[in-house]
Amino acid sequence: MSKTKIAVIGTGRMGSVHVRNIARSIPEAELVAICDIRLEVAQALADELGIPRVVKDYKELLADPGIEAVLIATSTDTHAFIIKDAAVAGKHIFCEKPLALELDKIDEALAAVAKAGVKLQVGFNRRFDKSFQHVREIVASGEIGRPCILRITDRDPEVPDMEFMRVSGGMFLDMTIHDFDMARFQIGDVEEVYAAGSVLIEPRLKEMNDVDTDVVILKFANGAVGAIDNSRQAVYGYDQRLEVFCTNGTAMANNEVEDTAVKGNPNGFQSARVPHFFMQRYAPCYVDEVQQFIACVRDDKTTPTTGADGRAAVVLGYAAWKSLRENRPVKVSEIG
Amino acid sequence: MSKTKIAVIGTGRMGSVHVRNIARSIPEAELVAICDIRLEVAQALADELGIPRVVKDYKELLADPGIEAVLIATSTDTHAFIIKDAAVAGKHIFCEKPLALELDKIDEALAAVAKAGVKLQVGFNRRFDKSFQHVREIVASGEIGRPCILRITDRDPEVPDMEFMRVSGGMFLDMTIHDFDMARFQIGDVEEVYAAGSVLIEPRLKEMNDVDTDVVILKFANGAVGAIDNSRQAVYGYDQRLEVFCTNGTAMANNEVEDTAVKGNPNGFQSARVPHFFMQRYAPCYVDEVQQFIACVRDDKTTPTTGADGRAAVVLGYAAWKSLRENRPVKVSEIG
Amino acid sequence: MSKTKIAVIGTGRMGSVHVRNIARSIPEAELVAICDIRLEVAQALADELGIPRVVKDYKELLADPGIEAVLIATSTDTHAFIIKDAAVAGKHIFCEKPLALELDKIDEALAAVAKAGVKLQVGFNRRFDKSFQHVREIVASGEIGRPCILRITDRDPEVPDMEFMRVSGGMFLDMTIHDFDMARFQIGDVEEVYAAGSVLIEPRLKEMNDVDTDVVILKFANGAVGAIDNSRQAVYGYDQRLEVFCTNGTAMANNEVEDTAVKGNPNGFQSARVPHFFMQRYAPCYVDEVQQFIACVRDDKTTPTTGADGRAAVVLGYAAWKSLRENRPVKVSEIG
Amino acid sequence: MSKTKIAVIGTGRMGSVHVRNIARSIPEAELVAICDIRLEVAQALADELGIPRVVKDYKELLADPGIEAVLIATSTDTHAFIIKDAAVAGKHIFCEKPLALELDKIDEALAAVAKAGVKLQVGFNRRFDKSFQHVREIVASGEIGRPCILRITDRDPEVPDMEFMRVSGGMFLDMTIHDFDMARFQIGDVEEVYAAGSVLIEPRLKEMNDVDTDVVILKFANGAVGAIDNSRQAVYGYDQRLEVFCTNGTAMANNEVEDTAVKGNPNGFQSARVPHFFMQRYAPCYVDEVQQFIACVRDDKTTPTTGADGRAAVVLGYAAWKSLRENRPVKVSEIG
Repeated sequence: MSKTKIAVIGTGRMGSVHVRNIARSIPEAELVAICDIRLEVAQALADELGIPRVVKDYKELLADPGIEAVLIATSTDTHAFIIKDAAVAGKHIFCEKPLALELDKIDEALAAVAKAGVKLQVGFNRRFDKSFQHVREIVASGEIGRPCILRITDRDPEVPDMEFMRVSGGMFLDMTIHDFDMARFQIGDVEEVYAAGSVLIEPRLKEMNDVDTDVVILKFANGAVGAIDNSRQAVYGYDQRLEVFCTNGTAMANNEVEDTAVKGNPNGFQSARVPHFFMQRYAPCYVDEVQQFIACVRDDKTTPTTGADGRAAVVLGYAAWKSLRENRPVKVSEIG
Repeated sequence: MSKTKIAVIGTGRMGSVHVRNIARSIPEAELVAICDIRLEVAQALADELGIPRVVKDYKELLADPGIEAVLIATSTDTHAFIIKDAAVAGKHIFCEKPLALELDKIDEALAAVAKAGVKLQVGFNRRFDKSFQHVREIVASGEIGRPCILRITDRDPEVPDMEFMRVSGGMFLDMTIHDFDMARFQIGDVEEVYAAGSVLIEPRLKEMNDVDTDVVILKFANGAVGAIDNSRQAVYGYDQRLEVFCTNGTAMANNEVEDTAVKGNPNGFQSARVPHFFMQRYAPCYVDEVQQFIACVRDDKTTPTTGADGRAAVVLGYAAWKSLRENRPVKVSEIG
Repeated sequence: MSKTKIAVIGTGRMGSVHVRNIARSIPEAELVAICDIRLEVAQALADELGIPRVVKDYKELLADPGIEAVLIATSTDTHAFIIKDAAVAGKHIFCEKPLALELDKIDEALAAVAKAGVKLQVGFNRRFDKSFQHVREIVASGEIGRPCILRITDRDPEVPDMEFMRVSGGMFLDMTIHDFDMARFQIGDVEEVYAAGSVLIEPRLKEMNDVDTDVVILKFANGAVGAIDNSRQAVYGYDQRLEVFCTNGTAMANNEVEDTAVKGNPNGFQSARVPHFFMQRYAPCYVDEVQQFIACVRDDKTTPTTGADGRAAVVLGYAAWKSLRENRPVKVSEIG
Repeated sequence: MSKTKIAVIGTGRMGSVHVRNIARSIPEAELVAICDIRLEVAQALADELGIPRVVKDYKELLADPGIEAVLIATSTDTHAFIIKDAAVAGKHIFCEKPLALELDKIDEALAAVAKAGVKLQVGFNRRFDKSFQHVREIVASGEIGRPCILRITDRDPEVPDMEFMRVSGGMFLDMTIHDFDMARFQIGDVEEVYAAGSVLIEPRLKEMNDVDTDVVILKFANGAVGAIDNSRQAVYGYDQRLEVFCTNGTAMANNEVEDTAVKGNPNGFQSARVPHFFMQRYAPCYVDEVQQFIACVRDDKTTPTTGADGRAAVVLGYAAWKSLRENRPVKVSEIG
C-alpha cells in the first residue's frame, strides 16, 4: 500500500512533535515537506530527520498536487484561514485545537471543508489516551448503567508565560476546552454551563481578566451533571483524572506515575510525581491521533474528532466565560 | 476523677450507637439513663447493657439534678425544643445533626443555650475522621500553601426508604449538609452556592421535589472554590473522598477498603468494596465525638462543633435548595 | 441462650486484651473470674471492668465447677502444665501461642486434652484477619487454579526488649511461628524448610544465637514453594503482607494504612505509615478468635486452630532453627 | 559530533528491536549494516528502515574498518565466538545476555575482549528501568540505612515454546539470570545460593529437568539475605517487582499497569493487567542501554554492565542449578 503524502505547517512546539512522530513512528504516512515562517527552524528539523522539502509559505504546499494532507500546527489565530485555503486546495486537514477563538471564523472554515468534501480532524489528543478510552468503553458497554456524574480534574504543572497567556483565549478556551471535549466524548451533549473562578496563583492574570483556578458545572442533555476543576499550578505534576459515575458503578482514570518506586520510612510512604506535562503524559496520543487521521483519509471514514467537535468545545468555552462574567448559568444555545 | 453523668434521649438507629459507645467505650462518662417514646426499645437496650434507668418522657431526665449532660438523638423535628428545654434545665447538650430544618427554631434553641451558658455540640461526626483530620492538619500547617480548590465526593450506597426521605429535608439538608460542614471545617466561610441536580436513580423523588444526584459549587470568602458531588446510590459502597488542592501541593483523603485482598487474573486485578455505610465507615468517629464533648464539659472548653456550626450548615443547605429551585448562584447572606 | 462462663488466666499484655474484649465485646461469654500471680494487676483490671472474682492461683478456678472454659495468656513456659491441669479439670481451653517451646511438653499437654475430650484452641490470631481469610477463600474456591508460590512478609516495627528475647524462643519460635501457621492455613502441609538469617539490627542478638533478619524457604507437600521474610525492625510500621500465587492468578493481602490521607508536593506523594504493631493491626482478630472458640464450645465443634496446629507450627520453628544452625534444608520429619 | 558507526548481528526477536531503536531513536549512532544468517529476514528489515547494507556472514562486517561497534543478538550458543572474533577485529561489543551457557567459553571471550581493549556491554536491560534505578538511588543514598532483605518477584506471563526451552539454559540461566544480575546491581556480591523449584504448570519441563516455579535464597557478602521467586505463567501479565528492605526503611518498585482505568461495581474495584511481557515493560530500557553503550564507546568509559557482570550472573545460575540438583546451599566459590 502506498503511503499517504502529508506536509506539516508550523514546526514550533506541537508541530515539531508531529514532525518527529510522522518521520519516525507513522510508517503509513510519508512526510514530504514541512513549513514554517521561521524557515531556519523548519530547516534544522528537516536536516535532522532527512525531510526532503522545507518551505516558508504554506501556499506552496497547497499548490503541490503531490500532497494529500496537511497538518496545521501554527499559532491559533492562523488556523481558520489555513484550513479554508487547504480545503479549497482539496487537502485533507489535521488541525491543532482550538480551531479558532472566533466562532464566525470557525464557521467559515467548516463551510469550506464541507464544500470541498475533505477530511478535517481536530487535535483533541486526550480522546486517544488509553485510560480515558478504557473508561469510555466501560461506560459505553452499559455494564455499569447510565451516567450520572462526570468529574474531571485537569491541572497544569505551572503557569505558562504571560505572552502566551495574552493570546491563548484564557483558561476556558485554552485549557478547559480539553475538558469540554472530554465531557462530550464521555457523556454527550452539554446544555448548560456554570463557572466559578479565581486568581490565586498568578496575580498578573487579573489585569487580563483571566483566572488560574476554577470549577465548572455542566448539565448534560441526558440529565447527568458534571464538575470540572482546573488549576494552572499543580506542583506535583500534570494532574489528569476523570470519573464517570453511573447508576450501577463507576469508572475512573487515575494519574499515571513517573515511576513505580515507593520509599518507606518513619514518616510513611513516598511515591513518585505524576508525569510533568502533556508532552510526557500524552506522548502516545500524538502518534495515535495522526495514525487514525491517516487511516480515515485512506479509508474515507469520518475522523474521530470532527470540525463539529472542535466547534462545540469552543462554544462551551464561550459559555463558561459568559457564565463567569455574568455569574449565572449559561445555556449553550445562548452562544450559538 | 468522677465520671460525667449523661443520659441519652432517643434510642433509635443513631441513639443506640451512642448508647453502646458510652456504655462500653467511654469510661469518662457514666450512662445513668436512656429515654425513648417507644419505652420497650429503650428497655431492651438497657437490659442488654445494664443501664440502670429507662424513661419515656425526656422531661423526667431534665428534672434530675444528678444528670449533667444529655445526648439528643431523636427525630429531627424534635431537636430544637428538646435543646431548649435541656438548656433551660442547665444540661450540657450533644445533639445529632441537623439542629432543625427551620432556621427560626434553630435560633430559638441557640438563644436558650447561650442564655443558659451550657455547652452544645452538634453531631458532625466526619470532623472526627482521622483521614479528614490529617488533611486539615496538612493544610493548616501551611506547608502546601493556601487552599485553592476543595473537592468532596459523598455518595450513599443506596437510597433510604421513602418515608424517611419525606421528612429528611431532602438531599441538601440531609446529606450534603455533612459536606457543607466539612467544607467549613477544611477551608472556612462560604459566601455563595450554586447547585445542579437531577433525579436519575429513584423516580419517586421527583414528586417530592428532591434529587438523588447533584453537584454543588462553593465560593469561599478567601477566594477558594469548591465542588461537591453527591449520589444516593454508589453500588460499590459508601464513597467518601475529599481533596484540598493548594498553591504548593494537595492533600487528599481516599476511601477506606473493606479488606486489603487483591485478586489477579487474566482480566486484571480485583480489590474490595469500600465500607458499606456510615455505621462502618465512621464507627470510631461516633466514639471520639462524644469523648471530646465530655472533655469539653469537664474542662469548660468550647465544643469542636458548635451551635453556630450546626446553623451554618443548615443555611448552606437552604442556599443550595434556593439555588437549585431558581437556577442561579445564591449568596449565603440571602438566607440569613 | 445462657452465656458460656469463662475465666482468664494471666492478665499481662495479651491477657488484658482478652479480658477487655470478653468483658465488652463478646456477649456470648460471661467473664466470671480472672487470675494473675501479680494479684494487684488482675484486681485493678477487675475493678475497672466490674469482674466479680480475682484469684492468684489458677487452680482455684479449675476447681470451680461453674467455670466452663479458661483462656490461658500466661508466660510461655507455663502454658503446657496449665493446659494439662485445665484438661484434667474438664475445662475447655483457649491458649496463647506458642503451646510450649519443648515438643515433649506439648505432647503431654495434647494427650491430656485428648483424654479429657475438651476443646483446645491456639491463639493464632492472624487466621482471623479478614484480608488473609479473603485470600484463603479466593484460593480455596479454585477460581485461580492451584497454589504455586507463597510469599509472606512479616516484619515487626521494633526489636522487643532483650529480657523478652532471651525467653522467647528466638526469631523462628516467637515471630516466624505465625508465618509457619499462616503457610499451613493458606497452602497446607510443609515437608521441608531452609532458613538463612543474619544479625543486622541488634548486635546483642548475636550472643543469644538469635537473628533479627531472615528468609525461609518452604517446600509444601503439594509441590508449591514458599518464601517468608522477617525483620525485627520495619521503621514504617508492622509490615504484614502475603501472596498466594496460583496457576491461573494470584491473591495478595497488602498492608493496612494508618489513615488514607495523601499529600502531594514537588517531591511526589506521601501516604501514611502502616499500623504500628499487632495490637492495632489485629485488634478485631482478638475478638473474633475468642468468639469462635466460644461458638465451638457451645456447638461442640472442632476449633479453627487446634492443638495439632499449635504443635505443627512449633515443629516448623525447630526445623528452621536446625536448618539455620546446620546450613542445610531440614525435613519436617526430622523434627518429629 | 560524528555518529558512532554500528552494525547489528542477528535480526530475530531482540535483534530487530535493537535495529528499530538504533534506526529511529538513537541519533548518536549510525546503523551502517545488519546481518542475519536468514538473509531475507534482515533484508526485509533493511528495506523497511532504509538500512544501507545487509550481509549474511558477520565476518564481512568485522572486516570493515568503517564499523566501530557491533551489537550481537544472535542465538546464545554463538555469542562467545562472535565476541571473540569481534574483539580480535577491534570492534566494541554490545552482546545480549547470557554471554554463553558455558563458563569456559565466557572466559575465552572475556580474555579476548581484555586483550583487545575493546568495550563490552552485556544486555541486562532491567538495570536501565527507571523504577529499579530509583530504588537503587534511594538505597545508595544511605537515607534508609543498610540493606537487609532483597525481594524480587519475576514471573513471565506464559511458558515459552518448548523448542526454545530446550536450548535456553533452563529457568536459572534463562530467566532468573536477570534477577541474579539485579541482585548484584541492588546489593552487591552474592556468596551463597539455595534454590527450590517445581514443575507445576508445564509437565513437559520435567523430562528436561527444568522447573517452571521456584524460590531462591541469596546470601550476600554484606550479610543481607535475598529471596527471589519465579514462575513461567502469571496470567495477569509480566510480574516484575522488587524491594530492598533496609535498617531504616524500605524501597520498593511495584508493577506498572496497562492503563489507569478502574471500574467500581458491587463486587469492588477492577483495575488493569500489568504490561504483557518484556517488549512492553522494558521498551525504554532497550533504547537507554544502547545509548549508554554508545556514550561509553565515545567517551572511553566503563560500560554499565560489563563482561564481569555477565559472567557473575551465569555463575549464580549454575550455583542455583547445582543447589536444586543436590538440594543444598551452594557457595558461589564452588562454581568458579
